[in-house]
Amino acid sequence: MEDEFSVALRQTAQLMERELDAFLPQSTNPEWPLHDAMRYAGLSGGKRLRAFLVIQCADLFDVAREYSIRVAAALEIMHTYSLVHDDLPCMDDDDLRRGVPTVHKKYDETLAVLAGDALQTLAFEILADPKTHPSASVRSELVLKLAQAAGGHGMVGGQTMDVYANADTISVPVMSRLQQLKTGALIAYACEAGAILGHAAPAQITSLRAYAHDLGLAFQITDDILDVEGESSEMGKATRKDVDAGKATFVSLQGLEKAKIHANMLSEQASSHLSIFKGNANLLRGAASFTVQRKK
Amino acid sequence: MEDEFSVALRQTAQLMERELDAFLPQSTNPEWPLHDAMRYAGLSGGKRLRAFLVIQCADLFDVAREYSIRVAAALEIMHTYSLVHDDLPCMDDDDLRRGVPTVHKKYDETLAVLAGDALQTLAFEILADPKTHPSASVRSELVLKLAQAAGGHGMVGGQTMDVYANADTISVPVMSRLQQLKTGALIAYACEAGAILGHAAPAQITSLRAYAHDLGLAFQITDDILDVEGESSEMGKATRKDVDAGKATFVSLQGLEKAKIHANMLSEQASSHLSIFKGNANLLRGAASFTVQRKK
Repeated sequence: MEDEFSVALRQTAQLMERELDAFLPQSTNPEWPLHDAMRYAGLSGGKRLRAFLVIQCADLFDVAREYSIRVAAALEIMHTYSLVHDDLPCMDDDDLRRGVPTVHKKYDETLAVLAGDALQTLAFEILADPKTHPSASVRSELVLKLAQAAGGHGMVGGQTMDVYANADTISVPVMSRLQQLKTGALIAYACEAGAILGHAAPAQITSLRAYAHDLGLAFQITDDILDVEGESSEMGKATRKDVDAGKATFVSLQGLEKAKIHANMLSEQASSHLSIFKGNANLLRGAASFTVQRKK
Repeated sequence: MEDEFSVALRQTAQLMERELDAFLPQSTNPEWPLHDAMRYAGLSGGKRLRAFLVIQCADLFDVAREYSIRVAAALEIMHTYSLVHDDLPCMDDDDLRRGVPTVHKKYDETLAVLAGDALQTLAFEILADPKTHPSASVRSELVLKLAQAAGGHGMVGGQTMDVYANADTISVPVMSRLQQLKTGALIAYACEAGAILGHAAPAQITSLRAYAHDLGLAFQITDDILDVEGESSEMGKATRKDVDAGKATFVSLQGLEKAKIHANMLSEQASSHLSIFKGNANLLRGAASFTVQRKK
């Protein structure tokens, strides 16, 4: 039987599929290949954990779902752009993503670059749209924080570190910072966006930030563990890629057992930051457990 | 002797160099290659016509320069991202830009993709920053309109058309739409941003939009003319590229003489839209003349 968290995550994923279908452009104009590639990238499934976090964190403050769902969609679109570009031949050179060919394999490199570019733009377009929140100051802050999380001092900075990291000299603290930027920043934004929508008090924001920080790192360590232990058929992408490429990961730096202990510790620590929300944050606690228990 | 417009454009270019130097990141962190590539792309000169248009249009409404300069910088950063990605091997495959190696030649493709990505993000970050305007609703609208101009229904849509256009079947109207998206949308945004900052009246916005529309098209036709007539040494990039690639341009579609007449007609028409601003818009009229008279 599915637990409460798994049901909620699955419902979010279904909801996002419908929402993204409405947000992603469709046309018969001469630029349709772009719109086609954007839709292909955006609608090829995914756990939608980031969307889940936005909606659940906003729920803590009784934010109307019509607002949090739009922010969740914008964040999933931002995340999708980063995957499309990360998969490019000049980046991680991946052929498979979520069980289907990556965008540059399905179309070509040109469309993968352009679709990624336009997906990033679309994320900001959704956030700045008055439909996303009646308060312009909320919209403006949602844009500002997403830009800070995604840009050269956030996600793209982390991706750069990842590409240029020297596997022989990298340490656990450096790897932690790399992952905080590369994957942690958008996960933290997911939680912060809920707080922005909900006009959260400073202590609440601090708690959600701490939760997101630990969750993000636990998520990445688990990704590294799954790269070693996961089955390609279940993961929907190539496994043992990092190992085979001699790339530094938490597993290569800490060993498999220590990495698992580290991830579990972070997952428990993440949940403990939610104490001020009492029973209202149970689904977020479920997300923390899921993060380290998932098989893909 | 330089005319009033040329002096003002040169001053804007100098100003932008200083502003962009402050906006573009610099670090000794492990992600420094990204910041280095972003600075290289952003500080390699350029006419800065888009920045000029933002500042001059905002000046029509007595907007404080501290605001319009930031919006101008954000737009130049957005434009820079598009050039970096357009130059990529999978796009136009250009080795030279503004007389120096393109980003993927100076660094590599990976950094060119990532630097372009982070530059786009930075443009939105600047616009959403409270320093850019005290009114959140102005900031939010600046973000929304830039996203609309730059995304899949704007600049990136036009770039896609350009890549996939069939030179044998394309017509002047289709080419006009392509260029309106590819280069026209950001030029129109430059003028509209000035109007947003200045809380312009609807009739004033209509006039500036019409001006920008004609100016953008005149600009592009002139680019096509310069691709045929310009000197590579003066242009700072390869010429006759479109011709040699058998690519459709306004010159290939209309012939050189007709293209020149078309551009001049649009330039005069652009100026005529400014009549409601009387003598205050003389520098914008200068921009319209410059657009078709420039040698690079």
